[in-house]
Amino acid sequence: MILFQCDYTQGAHPSIIRCLAETNLEQTPGYGEDHYCQQAAQLIRQACGSEELDVHFLVGGTQANFTVICSALRPYQGVLSAQSGHINVHETGAVEACGYKVLPLPSPDGKITAAQVEQAVADHWQDTAHEHLVQPGMVYISQPTEVGTIYTKEELTALSQTCRKLGLPLYADGARLACALTAEGCNLTLADMTRLCDAFTIGGTKMGALFGEAVVLTNPAMRKDFRYLIKQKGGMLAKGRLLGIQFYQLFQQDLYWQLGRHANAMAMKIRQVCQEKGYPFLVDSPTNQQFPILPDSHLEQLAKDFGYSYTQRMDAEHSAVRFCTSWATKEEEVAELVERIRTLSSN
Amino acid sequence: MILFQCDYTQGAHPSIIRCLAETNLEQTPGYGEDHYCQQAAQLIRQACGSEELDVHFLVGGTQANFTVICSALRPYQGVLSAQSGHINVHETGAVEACGYKVLPLPSPDGKITAAQVEQAVADHWQDTAHEHLVQPGMVYISQPTEVGTIYTKEELTALSQTCRKLGLPLYADGARLACALTAEGCNLTLADMTRLCDAFTIGGTKMGALFGEAVVLTNPAMRKDFRYLIKQKGGMLAKGRLLGIQFYQLFQQDLYWQLGRHANAMAMKIRQVCQEKGYPFLVDSPTNQQFPILPDSHLEQLAKDFGYSYTQRMDAEHSAVRFCTSWATKEEEVAELVERIRTLSSN
Amino acid sequence: MILFQCDYTQGAHPSIIRCLAETNLEQTPGYGEDHYCQQAAQLIRQACGSEELDVHFLVGGTQANFTVICSALRPYQGVLSAQSGHINVHETGAVEACGYKVLPLPSPDGKITAAQVEQAVADHWQDTAHEHLVQPGMVYISQPTEVGTIYTKEELTALSQTCRKLGLPLYADGARLACALTAEGCNLTLADMTRLCDAFTIGGTKMGALFGEAVVLTNPAMRKDFRYLIKQKGGMLAKGRLLGIQFYQLFQQDLYWQLGRHANAMAMKIRQVCQEKGYPFLVDSPTNQQFPILPDSHLEQLAKDFGYSYTQRMDAEHSAVRFCTSWATKEEEVAELVERIRTLSSN
Amino acid sequence: MILFQCDYTQGAHPSIIRCLAETNLEQTPGYGEDHYCQQAAQLIRQACGSEELDVHFLVGGTQANFTVICSALRPYQGVLSAQSGHINVHETGAVEACGYKVLPLPSPDGKITAAQVEQAVADHWQDTAHEHLVQPGMVYISQPTEVGTIYTKEELTALSQTCRKLGLPLYADGARLACALTAEGCNLTLADMTRLCDAFTIGGTKMGALFGEAVVLTNPAMRKDFRYLIKQKGGMLAKGRLLGIQFYQLFQQDLYWQLGRHANAMAMKIRQVCQEKGYPFLVDSPTNQQFPILPDSHLEQLAKDFGYSYTQRMDAEHSAVRFCTSWATKEEEVAELVERIRTLSSN
Repeated sequence: MILFQCDYTQGAHPSIIRCLAETNLEQTPGYGEDHYCQQAAQLIRQACGSEELDVHFLVGGTQANFTVICSALRPYQGVLSAQSGHINVHETGAVEACGYKVLPLPSPDGKITAAQVEQAVADHWQDTAHEHLVQPGMVYISQPTEVGTIYTKEELTALSQTCRKLGLPLYADGARLACALTAEGCNLTLADMTRLCDAFTIGGTKMGALFGEAVVLTNPAMRKDFRYLIKQKGGMLAKGRLLGIQFYQLFQQDLYWQLGRHANAMAMKIRQVCQEKGYPFLVDSPTNQQFPILPDSHLEQLAKDFGYSYTQRMDAEHSAVRFCTSWATKEEEVAELVERIRTLSSN
Repeated sequence: MILFQCDYTQGAHPSIIRCLAETNLEQTPGYGEDHYCQQAAQLIRQACGSEELDVHFLVGGTQANFTVICSALRPYQGVLSAQSGHINVHETGAVEACGYKVLPLPSPDGKITAAQVEQAVADHWQDTAHEHLVQPGMVYISQPTEVGTIYTKEELTALSQTCRKLGLPLYADGARLACALTAEGCNLTLADMTRLCDAFTIGGTKMGALFGEAVVLTNPAMRKDFRYLIKQKGGMLAKGRLLGIQFYQLFQQDLYWQLGRHANAMAMKIRQVCQEKGYPFLVDSPTNQQFPILPDSHLEQLAKDFGYSYTQRMDAEHSAVRFCTSWATKEEEVAELVERIRTLSSN
Repeated sequence: MILFQCDYTQGAHPSIIRCLAETNLEQTPGYGEDHYCQQAAQLIRQACGSEELDVHFLVGGTQANFTVICSALRPYQGVLSAQSGHINVHETGAVEACGYKVLPLPSPDGKITAAQVEQAVADHWQDTAHEHLVQPGMVYISQPTEVGTIYTKEELTALSQTCRKLGLPLYADGARLACALTAEGCNLTLADMTRLCDAFTIGGTKMGALFGEAVVLTNPAMRKDFRYLIKQKGGMLAKGRLLGIQFYQLFQQDLYWQLGRHANAMAMKIRQVCQEKGYPFLVDSPTNQQFPILPDSHLEQLAKDFGYSYTQRMDAEHSAVRFCTSWATKEEEVAELVERIRTLSSN
Repeated sequence: MILFQCDYTQGAHPSIIRCLAETNLEQTPGYGEDHYCQQAAQLIRQACGSEELDVHFLVGGTQANFTVICSALRPYQGVLSAQSGHINVHETGAVEACGYKVLPLPSPDGKITAAQVEQAVADHWQDTAHEHLVQPGMVYISQPTEVGTIYTKEELTALSQTCRKLGLPLYADGARLACALTAEGCNLTLADMTRLCDAFTIGGTKMGALFGEAVVLTNPAMRKDFRYLIKQKGGMLAKGRLLGIQFYQLFQQDLYWQLGRHANAMAMKIRQVCQEKGYPFLVDSPTNQQFPILPDSHLEQLAKDFGYSYTQRMDAEHSAVRFCTSWATKEEEVAELVERIRTLSSN
């Protein structure tokens, strides 16, 4: 059985494990104030091309999301997000549990546009009873999105300009950021993300680390006292160096981007065979998540040996599913899947 | 420089690192539904002597605390705690951020008594305006406490009986549980904890793991849907197996208790030399945290080579400080500290 | 200028003002524990045909809604509501500020169906990652809805049966309940509401009182300690008798229902003239809110002398607006509006 | 039976009732945007001697408190308050339910000092782990306090200067403000309050109105978007004019202060007879709440004809109780109580 249902089925890149083992008995201060965290933050600042930012390491993505959101919103504000945004549908209402409404925008491809944000904000202020409505206070996007699509430089620039014009911080959830920025056709760099967003995460969990997300904050208002929020919301690791060590490894060389490229390359092979089979796709993704639509009979055959995740029923005989690759996906595993798909038949 | 200021200065017990490395590339399902978590939970059930409990693995102690508290309280209820309780003074108001008031009880030694709980509850109901007061809805203790003291079997039994009589769940924060249950003079077992508490944690972070806390729930009402809460509050690890593997290692043999005994033994050497020097103690602790009161001049001399944490000023010339040992503290490190303390002089 | 934009433009029915004046200097206990509140609650119990319910008087509708919701949900649960439900779009995120997500269901006519609830709950449990989703924990409806439509006995019975089967409390916001239950074609009684709902409100503010909503709780779990919640959430009035006196007046005779009938009758005259003019309606409402679609040029002419509220643009030249009547609307005021509408022309 | 247990046993000053009756059928816009609210706000601005402030009318005191606090704090901050502060002990944890910790300061007389605030803030920042502590973010006082004492001009000036130096907004709960500012020995004016506080309330409920509190905001940061908060937290009245009309009556002439003076004068008669009887007092109050300590046998005799509220047991035979007067207390009622107290004897 080979699992393609998600991108966190394995541990960490071996160099990370090695470094954790080597540094294991060294004594360091706790809570992210050790030299590993400092060095990792410095590497990330360099990669971002800016010294004017704070880098924090949090234990997970849900926490990173709600902690960042808590740093930006006042109690009566909400966060605009694609309907399919992770914060809206896959975090058990964590943002609401912090007191904030997620304001969903329709989005067939997981992305939202500058025009949608502009309209939502205009609608708010044009309503004479706007004090009875949740005020849009922030914009959440994911890069890549939950369905694997990516914002281009032009799209992100337009969003950023609109957000700044309207006074809304723009936050990008980069749980799979390496996959976005190394995708074919992506013309965005980490420096662009830094310049265009008020905050974003550099995902570790799905990109080669055991766990952990780096939060990059460029907006000064959100930077103030952020560590209090991390602690209060449970995102502060006592042995914070574990996060520092991991991100140090990922950013010391080109490792982070290599791992993203690898995951994408593996996914492209799955995409190609599905195209050859004539399977349509739920959405056109250039990253490590592929959403082909298969006959149910084909899926049944695959299910014996390959894990995938069920996304949605399309009609009486077809379903969209997700195949996910990662930094750890082996060439031979994908080759096996590709070969099996190639030979699927309905008889 | 040798650090004694806290018990999370190092990584994990080498056997844990080894096991993480060995299992690193194995594929498992996420979010704690892997076989390592299942096996670890089973080992803990055995150690607790009961099948009638749920075991969950969370990323950290602050989260474990507020997640458990959220599982028990209704919105208008609060949690009784020693004034010095971790949830009251060292979690940046995490419990309040979940909407619940911590109801502090005075406690010079970090413990609260059955009589205090009984009185607090009686005071509540006797107040004719009790609907204007936060209703005591739960009792939080730590075992050992934040100042290293421990509840005896008699004390915990009395607390438990009172709590059951009053309908209040009893929750014990066991961030350093191994140190409590292996302390000299402790007549409590893990089975006793299981029998007497509605919920408790088995701390990993400070007891040999890289990170993570096991939450043991015996109260059926608190067990219902607990995983939703873990996810919402950010305590659910995508690669949950990391926690399963660690707790499996800790409980597979006697390792968890060995590590606690070691930490205590190291602390007793520090206690002994302080007693020999005639230093009084802030509190009499049989566990891995020692709070001697030293002349400031002695502390200054120590500070060059040894890390300790400053607790409080006692008078113009004396301060209480904390020396903390752990599973990783080496005999020779303690010997060095002991020797230095022995030879401190005010001239 | 005659205002039809909402149903709270005037004070209270004169008999209420009179009674407040007459009892003004009587001394009573505070916080709703006076004899007026007790008598009013008793009258409401009689009107509901059940002794097995609690009646509380709260200062306003937003508070009534979130207080009731807080009494029913656990932190990871959400409340199903029509997309247009008051809690979803007109309370500045008050429910989210209490930590709960509103789970919106599409609804062109403001109502939700048993089938929608059943599907939403089935979708939740069928999702293998349901612990990452907000669990549906309650159903919110409004009777009449925000667009004036009403649930029939058959519809409410179906909803109730589904909710009970699924273990979800059913809560009906009755801010304009008198208008619903006295509407032409309504076959529901207050006793039906009591039997079919776990909680509902009997609106005062829009139905003849100065302010205040009666919350009727039939579900025992929600009744427990409800007064703590009222106090915590700010809904408890120090001089609670003001609410008791008002609801006593409304329910002492048939006054509450008379006022509802009057508001509806006034609205029907507006409906009729709009039908005669050939104006379509946004929705077909038998109660005191009417949503005709008029040419913008007609609206401009009306705006000089009559207040209405703007609902939405339909096309380049037409808009839907709301005309609202109330217990206080005078026959001659409606006659004036009707005559004006009758004579509107586009030239 | 004459009730002295609280100051909200009656309705409103007759002139308020009269004005509510006279304006009852006038049509006005809702939610506090009517001309009565505007006029009342303007009268209050004049009374405060400043145009640079916002005045809002909320339905009750608990809501006023938590709404103001929500306007000032970030999620990891707490509010410093006397241990006996209303928000700490008499609002069912309403502030915590909004996510904020109340940071209690010891206070035998209900007041806190500039030195206490300075120390608390210094303690916070001196703690090396201050990110693990709730950050003091605001100061709450009540004027008069819950035990009837008042801040002098010197005390409030010192508090204000300290708060401004430390960047903490100072908020005064003035539920009984008229009693404070008209008390014998009070050298503070409303203009002083306005100048020295960032926010304060002018209580209506206990000072002659049916219900309602005016919130005065001078701090620009707290003024921004405050109406969203009022709505979200349930403090916005649909028929907002009811509040405007009441405060207009109270501030149109000298009425508000007259009512405070009357309540105080009635209380002084009770104080005097208690002094004559040799009863000690729990605290020395110059306002409408008196806390004498009586033999239990005397209290028993009184209880047949007079309502008082029980405060606390002092020893086996004595208790402190509260006698409360108000704008509505009649001379002859007090005379009756005074005469009864005068003739109490233990035989």
